[in-house]
Amino acid sequence: MARRGQMKLNAFLHPTGHHIAAWRHPQATADAGVNFDHYVELARTAERGTFDAVFLADSAAVRDQNIDSASRVARYVVHFEPLTLLSGIAAVTRHIGLIATATTTYNEPIHIARKFASLDHISKGRAGWNLVTSSGEVEAFNFSRDQHLAHADRYDRAREFAQVVTGLWDSWEDDAFVRDKASGHYFDPAKLHVLNHKGPHFAVRGPLNVARSPQGRPVLVQAGSSEAGKELAAATAEVIFTAAQTLDEARAFYADVKGRLARHGRAPDTLKILPGVSPIVGRTAEEADEKFAILQELIHPAVGLSLLSQMLGGVDLSGYPLDGPLPDLPESNAAKSRQKLLVDLARRENFSIRQLYQWIAGARGHWTIRGSAHDIADQLETWFVNEAADGFNVMPPYLPGGLDDFVDLVVPELRRRKLFREHYEGRTLRENLGLPYPKHPSTDAAPEPETLAHAG
Amino acid sequence: MARRGQMKLNAFLHPTGHHIAAWRHPQATADAGVNFDHYVELARTAERGTFDAVFLADSAAVRDQNIDSASRVARYVVHFEPLTLLSGIAAVTRHIGLIATATTTYNEPIHIARKFASLDHISKGRAGWNLVTSSGEVEAFNFSRDQHLAHADRYDRAREFAQVVTGLWDSWEDDAFVRDKASGHYFDPAKLHVLNHKGPHFAVRGPLNVARSPQGRPVLVQAGSSEAGKELAAATAEVIFTAAQTLDEARAFYADVKGRLARHGRAPDTLKILPGVSPIVGRTAEEADEKFAILQELIHPAVGLSLLSQMLGGVDLSGYPLDGPLPDLPESNAAKSRQKLLVDLARRENFSIRQLYQWIAGARGHWTIRGSAHDIADQLETWFVNEAADGFNVMPPYLPGGLDDFVDLVVPELRRRKLFREHYEGRTLRENLGLPYPKHPSTDAAPEPETLAHAG
Repeated sequence: MARRGQMKLNAFLHPTGHHIAAWRHPQATADAGVNFDHYVELARTAERGTFDAVFLADSAAVRDQNIDSASRVARYVVHFEPLTLLSGIAAVTRHIGLIATATTTYNEPIHIARKFASLDHISKGRAGWNLVTSSGEVEAFNFSRDQHLAHADRYDRAREFAQVVTGLWDSWEDDAFVRDKASGHYFDPAKLHVLNHKGPHFAVRGPLNVARSPQGRPVLVQAGSSEAGKELAAATAEVIFTAAQTLDEARAFYADVKGRLARHGRAPDTLKILPGVSPIVGRTAEEADEKFAILQELIHPAVGLSLLSQMLGGVDLSGYPLDGPLPDLPESNAAKSRQKLLVDLARRENFSIRQLYQWIAGARGHWTIRGSAHDIADQLETWFVNEAADGFNVMPPYLPGGLDDFVDLVVPELRRRKLFREHYEGRTLRENLGLPYPKHPSTDAAPEPETLAHAG
Repeated sequence: MARRGQMKLNAFLHPTGHHIAAWRHPQATADAGVNFDHYVELARTAERGTFDAVFLADSAAVRDQNIDSASRVARYVVHFEPLTLLSGIAAVTRHIGLIATATTTYNEPIHIARKFASLDHISKGRAGWNLVTSSGEVEAFNFSRDQHLAHADRYDRAREFAQVVTGLWDSWEDDAFVRDKASGHYFDPAKLHVLNHKGPHFAVRGPLNVARSPQGRPVLVQAGSSEAGKELAAATAEVIFTAAQTLDEARAFYADVKGRLARHGRAPDTLKILPGVSPIVGRTAEEADEKFAILQELIHPAVGLSLLSQMLGGVDLSGYPLDGPLPDLPESNAAKSRQKLLVDLARRENFSIRQLYQWIAGARGHWTIRGSAHDIADQLETWFVNEAADGFNVMPPYLPGGLDDFVDLVVPELRRRKLFREHYEGRTLRENLGLPYPKHPSTDAAPEPETLAHAG
């Protein structure tokens, strides 16, 4: 029996779009990385298309360390910091969710807890945190470190980090603030819960100096698909952004992760799995092919090679012929699961280095599809009804045009098939995603007196 | 000869207002700390009054560690994180400057550089950073530390921190981004400047992944008035927010700090000195007195005592009689200059502990004045024309009413006297404050080739 229900859709917005040559497209906003109005337009388009959320990646460094290729590519060179950008967007939108990426490797839990809780209040319940552990060592050099943290250490830290952040979000019960002007009681001390966390990586006293936010807690998103990443997600994530190339692969990942939830006392539908998909949409299949060809022609070889090198975790491929095969690679500390995906693909398809970079130029290893709105909807439906996905993180190839195409052409087709909402169901991101409200932990427990003093 | 020109005005917005009992005032917005619309209204009022900027304090901890008093006070319990809040406000205002406080003691320079540069882009040139070193140890316990950094160490770190942030803001020349779709050149490598900072506290490679911002650099604000604070300000600040009680004291501070600038190669008007002032404005002096009396009556003794204890740097006064004198105190690591100001005041005025906390309840040691608009304007004019101030950081006693009073009553009187602008002069905060645009350091130097690779 095919599944029922409707899919969830996020709009993953790289400044000029996901295709590596996007900024050169005639209809791309080339100065997107400093153009706030561009993002407001995108967010409003996504809201018009009743998307669940916009989703922003992040890096605290210029990723491409090769100056020749970096100077030819708009992506991850300069861009807005996501928490400030989404706070600005929050003020001029009403429904769209706002998911920002922030790394646990180069942050402090109290900063992350505060900023996302603050965004949740500003947006009246639309914030989400995409927890990452940083995939490349370039960020380390901006944080007084000599090298990147090892993969296992990053996930250890991330696990404890998420626990501290969640605990800080529960510092106050929902109704802790009575604000009774007559009696002078501002909050009820019995509804304050001081965290007093002490662990291997962090000692954080709390409480958070932000009230419990409209969603209880901002929605927790994760992207890791290594073993450690899947375990962390099964324990804590509410949305997973993942990469899969084929229906079988996506179904296997879906079953694997959903199967882990019971061990954590969680129901399957408390975690939404959204693979990335980069759709090139035409009024006809031919028009879509033409759009794609225009983008592919705009890739400079230095840019393609550099992108591939980054995706493989920093491997230097400059000594190898572009039209020869991918050499054997050392295992990467950085982007483990992404490296494996690409090596498997190159071997399976017998791709040259050039073919491999052309292949990832669209969406860096994410599922790339093109065709008419009908074709695109068919493919998304197949994945959705076959339990390969609860929905998708849509990665427009160039912006704003690529998002307009999806909203104007594909969304109506999905709605016609009853696969996507006509109107927002709820007031918060959590409600629209169909995720449960996280009741305050004290709700089921006996009240426990707390004190602020001398706990540090 | 009396000075000419016009004063600068910032609106320093504590959530419900600066008076310690503000939230209990019938016209105060008691839920200000979670009410974004309240802040939007305040920012628009300040913009209507052609204020230069709104100014937000910050702390990454609930400051009051005494749960009985904390539960009776709205201030510094829960509130928005300033960078997210001001990014939201940026999207719905056009002229008002946006100054957020952020500590150098519990942050990383790359995060601060990114977020303020991002806010400067979002707001199209209205961001300012109030650099503080954190005054109480409560924040330390939220950052896996056992104790607060010593005063001298904090200022050492702050000096280097500011240097790194400024260097990161200069990562790209103003016209580095050519974005030439036809040739495929996104930026000009010769206009990229990698920081490669290595110092005692920080090693930060850079470059910043945000383009040089509309103001060149966000406006740098400081508040310290200790010797170390004044030296740091003379070297780096463009605005000083200070506390002074009397004209003589303010004139002495003004002459002292302005006198330090020449040693740093700076002209006197490149630094604006804005003392804090909390004005209680009535249509008549009697009405102002009544407004003040209402607020004073609302102070709970536990709240007053706790405020005093915090202002003195964490001294425990609970063992002393409220109506007895202030005891001799150990020197504070935290709020050195503030402690001295209060002890001097108590000795000079022969204040009891109760009288002292009542006295600071209005604005925590800042200049508090009350009267008709004419009276208030007289006092501000006296300080301005006698070179005690370049303008003021206005601290409304309760909100929104206290800001409305100032904008509706005092601003017109200042304008009538030609002491304050009728319209914004510039497009950016920097232009409105009359501060010079910081040319990129490369402008006067010979071009220097830079490379991104292997510099860490």
